[in-house]
Amino acid sequence: MASTDLPAKYKAAIYDEPGKISTKVVELDMPEPASGDVLIKLTHTGVCGSDLGLMTNRWRHMPVPTAAGQVGGHEGIGHVVKLGPGTENSGVKVGDRVGIKWLAGICGSCQPCLNGYDAACERQKISGFYWPGTFQQYVTSPANYVTPIPDEVSSEAVAPLLCAGVTAYSALRKTNLKSGQWVVLMGAGGGLGHLATQIAARGIGLRVIGIDSGSKRELVLESGAEHFLDFSSKDIVKEVTEITGGLGAHAVVVLTNANGAYAAAIDLVRVGGTITCVGIPEGDMLPIANAFPQILIGKSLKIIGVAVGNRQEAIETLDLAARGIIKTHYVVDKLENLTQIFQNMHDGKLNGRVVLDLQ
Amino acid sequence: MASTDLPAKYKAAIYDEPGKISTKVVELDMPEPASGDVLIKLTHTGVCGSDLGLMTNRWRHMPVPTAAGQVGGHEGIGHVVKLGPGTENSGVKVGDRVGIKWLAGICGSCQPCLNGYDAACERQKISGFYWPGTFQQYVTSPANYVTPIPDEVSSEAVAPLLCAGVTAYSALRKTNLKSGQWVVLMGAGGGLGHLATQIAARGIGLRVIGIDSGSKRELVLESGAEHFLDFSSKDIVKEVTEITGGLGAHAVVVLTNANGAYAAAIDLVRVGGTITCVGIPEGDMLPIANAFPQILIGKSLKIIGVAVGNRQEAIETLDLAARGIIKTHYVVDKLENLTQIFQNMHDGKLNGRVVLDLQ
Amino acid sequence: MASTDLPAKYKAAIYDEPGKISTKVVELDMPEPASGDVLIKLTHTGVCGSDLGLMTNRWRHMPVPTAAGQVGGHEGIGHVVKLGPGTENSGVKVGDRVGIKWLAGICGSCQPCLNGYDAACERQKISGFYWPGTFQQYVTSPANYVTPIPDEVSSEAVAPLLCAGVTAYSALRKTNLKSGQWVVLMGAGGGLGHLATQIAARGIGLRVIGIDSGSKRELVLESGAEHFLDFSSKDIVKEVTEITGGLGAHAVVVLTNANGAYAAAIDLVRVGGTITCVGIPEGDMLPIANAFPQILIGKSLKIIGVAVGNRQEAIETLDLAARGIIKTHYVVDKLENLTQIFQNMHDGKLNGRVVLDLQ
Amino acid sequence: MASTDLPAKYKAAIYDEPGKISTKVVELDMPEPASGDVLIKLTHTGVCGSDLGLMTNRWRHMPVPTAAGQVGGHEGIGHVVKLGPGTENSGVKVGDRVGIKWLAGICGSCQPCLNGYDAACERQKISGFYWPGTFQQYVTSPANYVTPIPDEVSSEAVAPLLCAGVTAYSALRKTNLKSGQWVVLMGAGGGLGHLATQIAARGIGLRVIGIDSGSKRELVLESGAEHFLDFSSKDIVKEVTEITGGLGAHAVVVLTNANGAYAAAIDLVRVGGTITCVGIPEGDMLPIANAFPQILIGKSLKIIGVAVGNRQEAIETLDLAARGIIKTHYVVDKLENLTQIFQNMHDGKLNGRVVLDLQ
Repeated sequence: MASTDLPAKYKAAIYDEPGKISTKVVELDMPEPASGDVLIKLTHTGVCGSDLGLMTNRWRHMPVPTAAGQVGGHEGIGHVVKLGPGTENSGVKVGDRVGIKWLAGICGSCQPCLNGYDAACERQKISGFYWPGTFQQYVTSPANYVTPIPDEVSSEAVAPLLCAGVTAYSALRKTNLKSGQWVVLMGAGGGLGHLATQIAARGIGLRVIGIDSGSKRELVLESGAEHFLDFSSKDIVKEVTEITGGLGAHAVVVLTNANGAYAAAIDLVRVGGTITCVGIPEGDMLPIANAFPQILIGKSLKIIGVAVGNRQEAIETLDLAARGIIKTHYVVDKLENLTQIFQNMHDGKLNGRVVLDLQ
Repeated sequence: MASTDLPAKYKAAIYDEPGKISTKVVELDMPEPASGDVLIKLTHTGVCGSDLGLMTNRWRHMPVPTAAGQVGGHEGIGHVVKLGPGTENSGVKVGDRVGIKWLAGICGSCQPCLNGYDAACERQKISGFYWPGTFQQYVTSPANYVTPIPDEVSSEAVAPLLCAGVTAYSALRKTNLKSGQWVVLMGAGGGLGHLATQIAARGIGLRVIGIDSGSKRELVLESGAEHFLDFSSKDIVKEVTEITGGLGAHAVVVLTNANGAYAAAIDLVRVGGTITCVGIPEGDMLPIANAFPQILIGKSLKIIGVAVGNRQEAIETLDLAARGIIKTHYVVDKLENLTQIFQNMHDGKLNGRVVLDLQ
Repeated sequence: MASTDLPAKYKAAIYDEPGKISTKVVELDMPEPASGDVLIKLTHTGVCGSDLGLMTNRWRHMPVPTAAGQVGGHEGIGHVVKLGPGTENSGVKVGDRVGIKWLAGICGSCQPCLNGYDAACERQKISGFYWPGTFQQYVTSPANYVTPIPDEVSSEAVAPLLCAGVTAYSALRKTNLKSGQWVVLMGAGGGLGHLATQIAARGIGLRVIGIDSGSKRELVLESGAEHFLDFSSKDIVKEVTEITGGLGAHAVVVLTNANGAYAAAIDLVRVGGTITCVGIPEGDMLPIANAFPQILIGKSLKIIGVAVGNRQEAIETLDLAARGIIKTHYVVDKLENLTQIFQNMHDGKLNGRVVLDLQ
Repeated sequence: MASTDLPAKYKAAIYDEPGKISTKVVELDMPEPASGDVLIKLTHTGVCGSDLGLMTNRWRHMPVPTAAGQVGGHEGIGHVVKLGPGTENSGVKVGDRVGIKWLAGICGSCQPCLNGYDAACERQKISGFYWPGTFQQYVTSPANYVTPIPDEVSSEAVAPLLCAGVTAYSALRKTNLKSGQWVVLMGAGGGLGHLATQIAARGIGLRVIGIDSGSKRELVLESGAEHFLDFSSKDIVKEVTEITGGLGAHAVVVLTNANGAYAAAIDLVRVGGTITCVGIPEGDMLPIANAFPQILIGKSLKIIGVAVGNRQEAIETLDLAARGIIKTHYVVDKLENLTQIFQNMHDGKLNGRVVLDLQ
């Protein structure tokens, strides 16, 4: 598509009443890519729980509330249709299929960036939060931060991987386990969890004990877990201990946003084990209930917090999809139904991830 | 000294009433070193806060209470006077000056041992807790776990390094900082702290911000800290932030046993920072008050627990002493005064470490 | 079997003429386990290329030649029949099925040991080289260094894993790759190689390009390699570059003892890549032909040498066997045929590993 | 200085006859900063041995020869005078004092970049080689790759740190030593070496054995080495072994461009030791003479290649200078003398680094 063919207006969904579950489809003017940016014609976008948290201002740790008129979304896929100034030699070309993640861009030169903490960049651009998101047909994005999409995967299948998949992958990598070790996944059947289970079991060669509510048993075992435990069981500690030869798991990754899952994690790991925090509880902040110095010291434990993955992790996650190792459970819907989709998500009625077809 | 010269009886201090601050000097029969052990004639032993915790049964996380008649102590120095069976080719010889640490021995082949977690060995021998300690003139100890003492240091000066020094060193190493980075030491003027400050500033090349009560200011600055902050100040977070160029410290190491110090630690570190738990609070166990998943995730933090150091860390700690880089503040006393020493320790009246001359 | 039932004499094969390919079956007196040792009734032992190297004194880097009368062998399996002094609380019990590796024991307290380099222990005991080996029905061995054998595997199948398997596993671990990365295995169809291919592809989740002579194609692909390249091809560099998307492999592990394989390795890796040395060339020592500082610097490469694995690596290797992930190709033979087996090995006529039934 | 005050022409030194030692001072037109770049008014630049290698085309590993008219130089310091498009929110402001290194810029998104290998960026801009260098009064440079200069240091003193200092620092960091360990620096008295000695001994807390020609003894010991050894001695291996307690050094860093230094390195390290390649030999490429697989395997050695440092390493190197820990030996000269300076460098007549005052 030549840039002269671009329409003057296009369709987008905005948060018209932040704080409430409400979106509105409007027409916006076609943007011009700024220096360092490219213009992308989006074909698909995932809808993520984080979007709901931002729209309703339930994510208390964000520094400011969401502004009215914000276009949300951060799991977008499309094709580059125009290069902004200074991107001619960036490696990205018109026609490339690329993805947009939670972070649309980083400065690359602040202290967090130089030390590999993209998610804490002092000048970060969050897609769908004070930077135009992916619930629209066109978006501009920094050329050096878009993710190349491998030919082997479809755009609708890959959209949810750009946030949930990359986050799960990054968390498992930073947990620093070796293949053959035992990992407990708390919330193994959720949006993050069913991807984390596949990545852990089939991509990294870990032995997975999945914990979730009983209704998720089949999904978790299908995803590659060797064992499923019902979270409501009283014997979780005993069961994990038995499965792991009396020693406990090498790590627990908490993928749910339940404070109770955090409290339960510490008793499940062996000496030298790791508890990885990924799921972000909503509402008032509570400490991890069992994070006693005495136990951390006595068992030489680590607790680590992991935010969203970086570009290399995104490439590696998509490579797992391209090789057929991970598969997303998703349904395709349209932009006009976005408010209802969020309502269903809030009510716990969604089954798998939702992907919007934007064409 | 030939083994034929050994006396039949020797002097030892036992915990005669565990649960109370009470010791009693008695005569014990000379032991024979078992297979794999050597017999050591002790000349000096340090007295450590952990001994008080064990004697009074205030260390709630220990699996069983201390038994009456136990000889305590775990910072012993002396000379090997007899080799037990199977130690002829161990590298330890009669006449060697060696040290005994918290761990008198480990099995070397259980899962914690094989993965480098000596302190969690399933068959560990704790000096002064169900294994004869160092508050006595003779002790047997596994040949493969005694620490060689460099010629450059005196026995009295080095005794406190075998527990406090090695623990401080191990904690700083496992915090995994690079020279030139900022570390906050909570309790920088204490028994562990004044050694940690010297090791961090002079041994590892870290930039130290020492925090303690105001009376410790001089000791902390003399020990090599660039800055001293009074724990009672309301502006600790602001002060640390300013000193570190607005970013926070790279790590906080909590060397005191105050739950309040743990609660304060998390706000002092920068993105990607580490909080290292070393000081073991007595009494009821409390979680780390500010260990919120949201903050751990948002700032990519790590909390790690570190138990006592291993043999290699002991060798490296003593090497720092041999090179004149660390110096202990200690006073020499005698075995008969041990109960009073513990009482003073309990009452907070000690200034520096106490070393007993056992000769 | 109670120790009172032990025979006074038993059968062993010795190197009667070191320097030549020659062994002789003799009767030896039953030994008494020394302090720290256990007595093992061996049922099976593997025969390894290293035994041939030692017997014929073709391993030029060994400090001394092999002594006449030496019992060789270092891949033994059997049951503990008697505990030596000081092993009562070692965790090993009479009746346990255990394995013996290249290293029968280490001191555990010299500098190499304390830093994790078991193979360089200053007081190491090499099974079959100045320490009684496994080509016999009974052997004594240090209790803390025998390897527990999981119930799921047969003794004959597991014997070759104790040297070849553990070495391959250790080399792959120390190469420090992440699942999903490309590794080239030079000699992928050999005794070490076919195990390394299985461990890499199925155990660790690496993508394997196997290189060997054309006759090994089927074995290498069956073992899990994605690609097989014939070593005699002139286009190895081009082929590896294409397979890996133009970047080169993340690492090459050299499992053969051919100097030519070392020379070829450096051009196959990408920026930041690793060349891992495992196969030990016989005869005169030659430098790695293409190890130019300019290339190492320009591409930020690493060359690492890896010796035999340690106890934890042995446990993890056997766990892969217990889970059915790796399988050995072997034939069972008897002690009396050992000389002929070595002759066939020397003549390149062996297909897979040989395991001796010692019962 | 407002951008309207910029002169139309300014002074620069070009390589007028690449292949020979020859430069010529000319007038160039003032450039306009492109998208992502800033314009810098340079006040000082170091002159580095690499410039000589490029000008004379003696660096055989470069892909193409140097072009006539190239402005060389890659150790520049100056002030930002104009912001190019898209750099308004980059963190760099008009008036900032900044430095330029070997790499003027990287793409940040190719595979080497995403994996931290800046020096192998597929779209790298090398200052003074197909990108305008620092032997001139004005230069444009990517905003996100300039190095902020701390207030505590003068521009002339800091210029040589931007290449030699950062390279030495990076090499020592990647050698991955702990404070208190022994490092041998080959070429400890050279341009790289005298900085490496200071950084190792005073910045990182390593114990340094410096090796160089006898005339450098005083400089090496003044720079912080504990021992100096003359390279022409026949007993280097014996001396290093004795100094290090019989074990050998933990690492050798080769900072000279002599193939002989590489050949000598391997015998100086202990079990598990590292040989780090930094100095780039000129002329025909030769393998490292003693890199025998047998020795690498037997001693578990590593050989690593290290190219120039990255932005974070530059910041940390300058921080050492700002804190007074490292000091450069340099003389100030002027642009017009550049040919003679190179001639002296080629003839081995330089003493310390040369810095040009460009004002």
